[in-house]
Amino acid sequence: MQKSVITISREFGSGGRTIGRIVAEKLGFAFYDQDLILKVAKESGLAEQIVEKYDEYATHKNSLLYALALSAGAGAGGTLSFVSRVQQAQAKIITELANKGSCVIVGRGGDYILRGREDCLHAFIHADMQFRAERVVRLYGDNGQKPEQRLRDKDERRKLYYRSFTMREWGDMHNYHIALDSGALGMETCVDILVALAKGGQ
Amino acid sequence: MQKSVITISREFGSGGRTIGRIVAEKLGFAFYDQDLILKVAKESGLAEQIVEKYDEYATHKNSLLYALALSAGAGAGGTLSFVSRVQQAQAKIITELANKGSCVIVGRGGDYILRGREDCLHAFIHADMQFRAERVVRLYGDNGQKPEQRLRDKDERRKLYYRSFTMREWGDMHNYHIALDSGALGMETCVDILVALAKGGQ
Repeated sequence: MQKSVITISREFGSGGRTIGRIVAEKLGFAFYDQDLILKVAKESGLAEQIVEKYDEYATHKNSLLYALALSAGAGAGGTLSFVSRVQQAQAKIITELANKGSCVIVGRGGDYILRGREDCLHAFIHADMQFRAERVVRLYGDNGQKPEQRLRDKDERRKLYYRSFTMREWGDMHNYHIALDSGALGMETCVDILVALAKGGQ
Repeated sequence: MQKSVITISREFGSGGRTIGRIVAEKLGFAFYDQDLILKVAKESGLAEQIVEKYDEYATHKNSLLYALALSAGAGAGGTLSFVSRVQQAQAKIITELANKGSCVIVGRGGDYILRGREDCLHAFIHADMQFRAERVVRLYGDNGQKPEQRLRDKDERRKLYYRSFTMREWGDMHNYHIALDSGALGMETCVDILVALAKGGQ
């Protein structure tokens, strides 16, 4: 069966975002990533800057101070209302985008928001530490932090963010139709598999 | 890159074994499953009946009584030596089989035993409870136990078995190059993807 919406979750540095972009190009699908955050900002009425900073940072109790600081910046309501507003707006926009036309959606818990829809393919991209560390330094440069620690920090934030509104575990293979090791298989192969699946088979 | 060995781990009822058999047929690879256990029995000098019963039952402390009962049946040595002998023999045989020629190996921690080998593709097949429950009753009949409980029991035993000699978590996507939801994607599609990957791409 053909799939008109592909959601991609990914470990930091695994190339999941790039894979998603190329898959979208090859299929002629729209591609949503950073643009989505900006739409969330407009929809929720929150300042773009705040939403960008908030994005993918958890509301988990360990990040409560961070969330509180952000909510203070937002001006109105408590932490919960701030968090809730961002997440509700995001879920609404992702659903609207998926209804509007064929697309690839990277991150933002798209797999959870669109769970159970027959027209969606949910993919997860991961890779080992070495592959990701080399790739992150090559693409984003050295920020002084050890690459491995940088990866762990970022993945941890994604995990907390995901858990905060899904009550599921990020990276649990049961939440995805397919999980691919981009380091071992190669990014091109991952693209080819997802394109073939979206077209309804191999 | 072409792969000459495919290991398949799978949730009970997901069709992973059948997928492995068809992949082997399509590629002209050998297929190892039950035969492997019999080879283990011969190699280790243990009675076939005992090894068959032992297979995929854990040495985890929760299963200690079970392991003890089996080791008593084996006649010599304590639980550890019994368990250790079976596992060492199994690892040796799986490595030998992988060295001998192209093959598909289902279960038995093949992904762990052959980890790090460039010529291996490690796959995991899973599916949701409904798909697996229906399939198990259709294929193996009703044994009086609720299908969902039957699946949970069997998966739990596989998990404990795997953990007992790998110190890794069964079903953690990081241990596999690819994880596929056979219920959502369809078993034929899973076969096609694995065959294409073994041939070196899509």
